[in-house]
Amino acid sequence: MSIITLTTDFGTDSPYVAAMKGVILSINPAVTLVDITHDIPAQDVQRGAVVLDDVTERFPDETIHVVVVDPGVGTHRSIIYAQIGQHHYIAPDNGLLSRLALRTRPSRLIQLTNHEFWLEEISNTFHGRDIMAPAAAHLSLGLDPQRLGSPTEDLANVDWPDVQQTATRIEGRVLQIDSFGNLITNITASMLGDRPTDERVCVICSIFETWGIFQTYGEALEGTFVAVIDSTGRLELALVGDNAAERLGIQVGCPVIASWE
Amino acid sequence: MSIITLTTDFGTDSPYVAAMKGVILSINPAVTLVDITHDIPAQDVQRGAVVLDDVTERFPDETIHVVVVDPGVGTHRSIIYAQIGQHHYIAPDNGLLSRLALRTRPSRLIQLTNHEFWLEEISNTFHGRDIMAPAAAHLSLGLDPQRLGSPTEDLANVDWPDVQQTATRIEGRVLQIDSFGNLITNITASMLGDRPTDERVCVICSIFETWGIFQTYGEALEGTFVAVIDSTGRLELALVGDNAAERLGIQVGCPVIASWE
Amino acid sequence: MSIITLTTDFGTDSPYVAAMKGVILSINPAVTLVDITHDIPAQDVQRGAVVLDDVTERFPDETIHVVVVDPGVGTHRSIIYAQIGQHHYIAPDNGLLSRLALRTRPSRLIQLTNHEFWLEEISNTFHGRDIMAPAAAHLSLGLDPQRLGSPTEDLANVDWPDVQQTATRIEGRVLQIDSFGNLITNITASMLGDRPTDERVCVICSIFETWGIFQTYGEALEGTFVAVIDSTGRLELALVGDNAAERLGIQVGCPVIASWE
Repeated sequence: MSIITLTTDFGTDSPYVAAMKGVILSINPAVTLVDITHDIPAQDVQRGAVVLDDVTERFPDETIHVVVVDPGVGTHRSIIYAQIGQHHYIAPDNGLLSRLALRTRPSRLIQLTNHEFWLEEISNTFHGRDIMAPAAAHLSLGLDPQRLGSPTEDLANVDWPDVQQTATRIEGRVLQIDSFGNLITNITASMLGDRPTDERVCVICSIFETWGIFQTYGEALEGTFVAVIDSTGRLELALVGDNAAERLGIQVGCPVIASWE
Repeated sequence: MSIITLTTDFGTDSPYVAAMKGVILSINPAVTLVDITHDIPAQDVQRGAVVLDDVTERFPDETIHVVVVDPGVGTHRSIIYAQIGQHHYIAPDNGLLSRLALRTRPSRLIQLTNHEFWLEEISNTFHGRDIMAPAAAHLSLGLDPQRLGSPTEDLANVDWPDVQQTATRIEGRVLQIDSFGNLITNITASMLGDRPTDERVCVICSIFETWGIFQTYGEALEGTFVAVIDSTGRLELALVGDNAAERLGIQVGCPVIASWE
Repeated sequence: MSIITLTTDFGTDSPYVAAMKGVILSINPAVTLVDITHDIPAQDVQRGAVVLDDVTERFPDETIHVVVVDPGVGTHRSIIYAQIGQHHYIAPDNGLLSRLALRTRPSRLIQLTNHEFWLEEISNTFHGRDIMAPAAAHLSLGLDPQRLGSPTEDLANVDWPDVQQTATRIEGRVLQIDSFGNLITNITASMLGDRPTDERVCVICSIFETWGIFQTYGEALEGTFVAVIDSTGRLELALVGDNAAERLGIQVGCPVIASWE
């Protein structure tokens, strides 16, 4: 009944993902495999870190999450096992786990050094298949994580756009754009405190502004530029029934300002 | 051994689908999850209705189908459970199930109102994760559907292009374009009766015409414009070995006329 | 605990794949289904043959692989069952299995002729759903493959670009481009013998050249044009941290020359 999730930047069309699944099923044919996404933009560790932070906690306790966004494959970056809350993670130590670790301090960090649980032949370009997949499969069979290698204290960090806060103003940025073209920011509901529903809050992104933060897209007319708190607790900007990113020409990184009197 | 299928407009690259899977597996880790498609064009309820009608009956009896194409999320549209034949459906009540219901009258319709089987926190923008996924997971554990809420009689309808029929002529439209660029129409084999193989049937779409309806693409030369009856029983127009939609510049909604003497 | 993999050219967005899964699960609800890829370019049998050769051997023994890249559907091409090593394959006999068969001679070839294990209604355009899926599902329940039809000796071949070798030079071609834009060639590590790490090897593709074959992308500076041996043992050309195919304007089929003194 073990579950292993896979998150990569290989592209949904890539058979590389299936190679990892084949390796895992060869070790534990009874495991349940779930794809989180394989469309992290190539080598975009920051985006990977956000996706893991948004989604993995929805899975049952003891789920094993394998994450391969690995621009440093074949260099001296290490591969790490982390226990964070009741979840297990295997990833290159390049910042992928740093957003999760900010919320919940990892209770165990192990650098993968024990070849015993890797494939026999290790390629220089595909450690997801040769090291991470078999290590995860062995964990799913009940292997004690400490047998994967040696304890470590360090976890690499990922660059993260700052949020500036004053008494009447929060400045953040567009963090990502979802498949509907909605603009997801690094401003959270908790930063806004009790202001989310206040009509005197003004939210500005690029040259566009909107007043108040709606409960749902449906409260506003088709085509209106609105701010809502999204399903992960982030401030999100949307054009009702339309693709805001395309229509307004806004990209990841664009500053977003919420202000009030 | 329960099966839950997922159909959404989130995009295959979206981790939102994985959030739903995490919620389901947290309630029933033994369920089998199958993706139908996550590439329904954003908020295209009509396309969702066609896909459900084409595919879901291929699954075993007692399969639970969760469908999230939900432009009205957070407004007063209701979420519905429907039993149609030996299959179970959970979807927003916006017409998604109306094509299925046209063929087989639903034997049970329940409006989801019982919070007991939802997540504790309900977002305003993602009822697929917060309401539909947990309700489906509870059904997969054997929950009696009537515990999900209160019985209802109504099921919303979806706009559907008319088919005009006379003694010697059927007028329909291109309903969708598949990944090969083939043009799938709303004219069915049963409307054509015994005429499918008759060489005197003329099929016109845009400025292109073809005579007779082939049994298979392979009967015609590469590059020929042909009409066939497709694997779901619909009249389909194709360019053998090529992409008809791109090459001929035809879009969804284009009129299609089949006529004979 | 049986595993069935699916490889098609239907596109990841296509619900046709789900129709096949529904058919399989209706016959064997306990089977584990794994997608290899559904983004083989439409009707590209050669690419399908490469993917199968690269990936399927990673799966456990006794895995059943169903492959639907089938430009001849509905014509007289046959559908074949092949046992290759400890794996089982069902595919149209159009060359899809020929790369696998070159490495390991099939120990059993059977032409699918026994309607008993097909769906009752056979469409002319979707034998993946109507013949291959149910046949695979019956195999996964333990059916003896010889009951699927009659033994045969022949397996169709796929066109394959030649590799020319002399004492100081190998001429091949770009075989495919992966999702990172890396150029994968039909020159293999074994053709290069002990030369892979020799700095006197010159690799030329289009107007671009590089000296020596690196162990990993990370040994070279960002933006450098490099040759590596990839995770499937093929010579691969890449632009470190960039998309080589797009940036250099190189397509499948482009000649690649490795030479030394």
